[in-house]
Amino acid sequence: MKGVEFLVALLLLALASKLASASDPSPLQDFCVAVNDTKDGVFVNGKLCKDPKLAVPEDFFLAGLNIPGNTSNQVGSMVTQANVQQIPGLNTLGISLVRIDYAPNGGLNPPHTHPRATEVLVLVEGTLYVGFVTSNPENRLFTKVLYPGDVFVFPVGLIHFQFNIGNANAVAFAALSSQNPGVITIANAVFGSDPAINPDVLAKAFQLDENIVKQLQSRFWWDNS
Amino acid sequence: MKGVEFLVALLLLALASKLASASDPSPLQDFCVAVNDTKDGVFVNGKLCKDPKLAVPEDFFLAGLNIPGNTSNQVGSMVTQANVQQIPGLNTLGISLVRIDYAPNGGLNPPHTHPRATEVLVLVEGTLYVGFVTSNPENRLFTKVLYPGDVFVFPVGLIHFQFNIGNANAVAFAALSSQNPGVITIANAVFGSDPAINPDVLAKAFQLDENIVKQLQSRFWWDNS
Amino acid sequence: MKGVEFLVALLLLALASKLASASDPSPLQDFCVAVNDTKDGVFVNGKLCKDPKLAVPEDFFLAGLNIPGNTSNQVGSMVTQANVQQIPGLNTLGISLVRIDYAPNGGLNPPHTHPRATEVLVLVEGTLYVGFVTSNPENRLFTKVLYPGDVFVFPVGLIHFQFNIGNANAVAFAALSSQNPGVITIANAVFGSDPAINPDVLAKAFQLDENIVKQLQSRFWWDNS
Amino acid sequence: MKGVEFLVALLLLALASKLASASDPSPLQDFCVAVNDTKDGVFVNGKLCKDPKLAVPEDFFLAGLNIPGNTSNQVGSMVTQANVQQIPGLNTLGISLVRIDYAPNGGLNPPHTHPRATEVLVLVEGTLYVGFVTSNPENRLFTKVLYPGDVFVFPVGLIHFQFNIGNANAVAFAALSSQNPGVITIANAVFGSDPAINPDVLAKAFQLDENIVKQLQSRFWWDNS
Amino acid sequence: MKGVEFLVALLLLALASKLASASDPSPLQDFCVAVNDTKDGVFVNGKLCKDPKLAVPEDFFLAGLNIPGNTSNQVGSMVTQANVQQIPGLNTLGISLVRIDYAPNGGLNPPHTHPRATEVLVLVEGTLYVGFVTSNPENRLFTKVLYPGDVFVFPVGLIHFQFNIGNANAVAFAALSSQNPGVITIANAVFGSDPAINPDVLAKAFQLDENIVKQLQSRFWWDNS
Amino acid sequence: MKGVEFLVALLLLALASKLASASDPSPLQDFCVAVNDTKDGVFVNGKLCKDPKLAVPEDFFLAGLNIPGNTSNQVGSMVTQANVQQIPGLNTLGISLVRIDYAPNGGLNPPHTHPRATEVLVLVEGTLYVGFVTSNPENRLFTKVLYPGDVFVFPVGLIHFQFNIGNANAVAFAALSSQNPGVITIANAVFGSDPAINPDVLAKAFQLDENIVKQLQSRFWWDNS
Repeated sequence: MKGVEFLVALLLLALASKLASASDPSPLQDFCVAVNDTKDGVFVNGKLCKDPKLAVPEDFFLAGLNIPGNTSNQVGSMVTQANVQQIPGLNTLGISLVRIDYAPNGGLNPPHTHPRATEVLVLVEGTLYVGFVTSNPENRLFTKVLYPGDVFVFPVGLIHFQFNIGNANAVAFAALSSQNPGVITIANAVFGSDPAINPDVLAKAFQLDENIVKQLQSRFWWDNS
Repeated sequence: MKGVEFLVALLLLALASKLASASDPSPLQDFCVAVNDTKDGVFVNGKLCKDPKLAVPEDFFLAGLNIPGNTSNQVGSMVTQANVQQIPGLNTLGISLVRIDYAPNGGLNPPHTHPRATEVLVLVEGTLYVGFVTSNPENRLFTKVLYPGDVFVFPVGLIHFQFNIGNANAVAFAALSSQNPGVITIANAVFGSDPAINPDVLAKAFQLDENIVKQLQSRFWWDNS
Repeated sequence: MKGVEFLVALLLLALASKLASASDPSPLQDFCVAVNDTKDGVFVNGKLCKDPKLAVPEDFFLAGLNIPGNTSNQVGSMVTQANVQQIPGLNTLGISLVRIDYAPNGGLNPPHTHPRATEVLVLVEGTLYVGFVTSNPENRLFTKVLYPGDVFVFPVGLIHFQFNIGNANAVAFAALSSQNPGVITIANAVFGSDPAINPDVLAKAFQLDENIVKQLQSRFWWDNS
Repeated sequence: MKGVEFLVALLLLALASKLASASDPSPLQDFCVAVNDTKDGVFVNGKLCKDPKLAVPEDFFLAGLNIPGNTSNQVGSMVTQANVQQIPGLNTLGISLVRIDYAPNGGLNPPHTHPRATEVLVLVEGTLYVGFVTSNPENRLFTKVLYPGDVFVFPVGLIHFQFNIGNANAVAFAALSSQNPGVITIANAVFGSDPAINPDVLAKAFQLDENIVKQLQSRFWWDNS
Repeated sequence: MKGVEFLVALLLLALASKLASASDPSPLQDFCVAVNDTKDGVFVNGKLCKDPKLAVPEDFFLAGLNIPGNTSNQVGSMVTQANVQQIPGLNTLGISLVRIDYAPNGGLNPPHTHPRATEVLVLVEGTLYVGFVTSNPENRLFTKVLYPGDVFVFPVGLIHFQFNIGNANAVAFAALSSQNPGVITIANAVFGSDPAINPDVLAKAFQLDENIVKQLQSRFWWDNS
Repeated sequence: MKGVEFLVALLLLALASKLASASDPSPLQDFCVAVNDTKDGVFVNGKLCKDPKLAVPEDFFLAGLNIPGNTSNQVGSMVTQANVQQIPGLNTLGISLVRIDYAPNGGLNPPHTHPRATEVLVLVEGTLYVGFVTSNPENRLFTKVLYPGDVFVFPVGLIHFQFNIGNANAVAFAALSSQNPGVITIANAVFGSDPAINPDVLAKAFQLDENIVKQLQSRFWWDNS
């Protein structure tokens, strides 16, 4: 009997904690601090939130964006996130930040899109070659070389990248117009999907030999964020 | 002198007609029929619109979605559009249609995203292998083989494709949740941008030899829409 | 005692399943698949959703839009739905589809509004007389006769209809700019409401004899969707 | 020659003033006062607006909602508007007001919808029977008898009405969640459209004899707003 | 044992009722009636809602806006609310009402902002001096003296006030473009926050002697809404 | 005569360029680069935009956020803006940046609100005491002392401030969830409006002697942005 009651209590607690994590596009109250625990399978669009009376300053706070990200990886870059996953108070508020570190001589934040956000980047150290490509049919490339203090905009949904062309570390902060902007690294999504896309599709789409496609699909695709 | 004045009058008319073609996300009147002439450089978010008193049924009408698209091209598919460019009455209304034709045995609508729309496709003829890939870090592939009468959803901003695995033509209609959804064909935007992206960026991002990247960049990339 | 615990367990399960079904206007993650079970009284705007890790391709899929709807009814038409009720993956994505079948010689999709959607229809078989009426004070009627391949737009909230003026079946697909567009069949809502509207109101509003109003209120009003 | 130049200058000024009257769903500045002159055919979604530096308090002001509307008409009611047409400062701000007067013993604001607004009504004098009907398939009628000081909500897009069941004048103020909510009086749009809807459509939809439909279509339909 | 089970049942009921109270910006169904009980800590953006089948006319109803508010207080005014807290049916619908009473000779609705709403006010009795101030750098004051029947607009987010300059009571109704507009009374938020803002901040910001700041911070700040 | 024609041409160009600068909440194309010239009185919600074919990388670029702002002023702080006024490519994209410099020992960004944006700040140098106050009736103060690398969120519409409590310069970057967020410095808008608010209003609202109010109103109120 006690076992059953214990189970019930556990279920209730699980349920209560799950429920405490949901939200949406425009705030409908001063704030709606996310409860960042969704492990039991109850979700809404965005996140459930905690009782506003229990909100504390720490819900709106994150430390650590002064710490350089580790760029010793395949692409030579690291994105440190400050979105609703790290700062529950961002829930419903439509904005977030990242710090991006780039290794010297070729550190690359590879071509990617944010399906739900525009990005505005300010370079604080180093030299970056940055760019974005417009949609069909023009596919125009807009590029710029950035120096410290320079700002550049990457419009929502467009493919963009940043590349360290200097011989020192580069560091940038970037703002994104969503508390949960999402990232789709193009190469990873196309060649590193789980499971793999039918190689015939990729061979035809990318005008590549099917063996090269299969090689690419067998590689490791680093996610820098 | 008269010539100059005539020019001025023409410019004014051009300006007036252009101005009569602009819009935005949610309609603020019954409709706002686009004036589809922006060649003189006046633009708003969406399209300027014509006097509602001058709207006619033809503004809400398009013929021709019964005509098969020509699939004799590099990817073996053709997308026939019915968005605000073709139907000015769609301006501000947040929806559009396409017809997609696929050649037998491999006609491909190659991996692409719609930066401003979710797509719902209904297959009317043939057999398609379709799929989409979720964002980082999972990059999960969701696929399905579709038969006539089957419907599939491609969520906004995610990379997706359709591939004719049957030995007959395939035909689908698809609805998109924007009057101007945009299309970014991944291979075209990455390897066919104008001008070309620095090959170092693509070689590192796609784990390809730089010579292969340069070859790809010199190819012709067909835009099927 | 066991009875109480059993009840508690049932309640918990009911609660848990209900919670798994809620959403909202713009997606705040890749997708938010609805859990389509709200029978126990817990609701949000839209639908609660399931754990994204548990999402499967079938959540984005529906079969059967190739099957003609049964038009042997009072109005001679049938609307087959493909919205968030049938395709849980449409939750939060702002779009849906329908197939509409019309009996020969007068099959009618009677005057109705969608309170939350614009509709774009493509005719695939038959001949339809279609139209919509603008708001006060003009109440202009926009009509068109459609043939296969023709597309027509019905702006959000306006009263519209389709009428089969051919002597064969007609079939159309239509896209709607909401995952839950709603339908208000005018005659049904006005004369077939539950309970009935005070007949004095309808007699005065429609300039009808009160006996005719009462007769109309006693009729059966077929809902074709 | 001077005449032509004068005309050009006039056209330019006309164009400039027209352009100064456009808008959209959410304000993107403190305000965007409409220039309510669209007679030359230039329109955007909402209204173009004037230079904010030229805005004056009168742009945000309207007098006269203390004056009873004339209810000596077919339906015995009058709606006095205070929306963006009367108050240009409401442009982009998503709200408006009306005063509604009802004649004693049956003054009726007949069944209608607002395609772009929810309505909240407060009764200040008299006694009203009010109601709205939900969408298909339930078409449930929600009604209430209101006395002074009572408030009632009519959700966006649903058919609703107010009926004076007292033997004195009734007066209400109502707020609408759009600066341009639109009104569709059901009977007017259905039986009084311009031109008339094919009577076969209405006879079948409303289960009325076609002669009655034709009679109704020949009547005068009063627009009380 | 019974105690524990009773507790579990209570918890379940509490949880169920809490869950029945959440919402969001645009309605995704006919309505989403708030369950106004959030005392157990489960929240979403807006409010959870009850089963639409259980909705009743009273959910859309409030009595009492005919009753004068008590203006015997520090500022001489009282705001009587009719928003989603009082009318659960307003949930998701983006609009609300207030009645405002002003004592004769100086009754003041002190400078405040609504972080989530534009306000449109109609004066029904008395004489008010009203105004709003635009944002930096101009901080222009727009004012008007209102008489019965006059309407004035206070754009979203701007500081505004109403002041009774007549020698009789004044009464107004105001519409707000949110079901939960929020109020920030400037003096209360600045000098009456809990806990107090560091007086150095306020002394410097308001160019006041620090002793005056401390005096102000020790006062009682009446909230008239 | 030529002079008149030249004028006409100039007017046309002016008009064309003005028109080329307008926008709105969600982008309806890849981008809509503002033309930042509205001196002739033509405005829309947001900005008109230029022909997308004429867009250049510089439209998405701004230099200079590495340059410290001059904090030798009344409040000891300076906000350097990077919004749609400085970066026309931000038009329609819903995001912007600022750099904020604070003088040592009391540099203050005084209490203010952004009527159209949430702010996320990252401190890069120095030590700040920061806070925001919730809306009525609680007016709770949320504060935190920030060190380099710390991030803090200020929810949309709430009054907030930052205060340098260190003995060195402080520097922060902040992201705002609008391309035109607006700033309302509370003291400036209340005591420094143009023209002045009736001092009776402010004396009563702020519980200040009317002479102090008049003194405050005669002061100079520095706008640090």
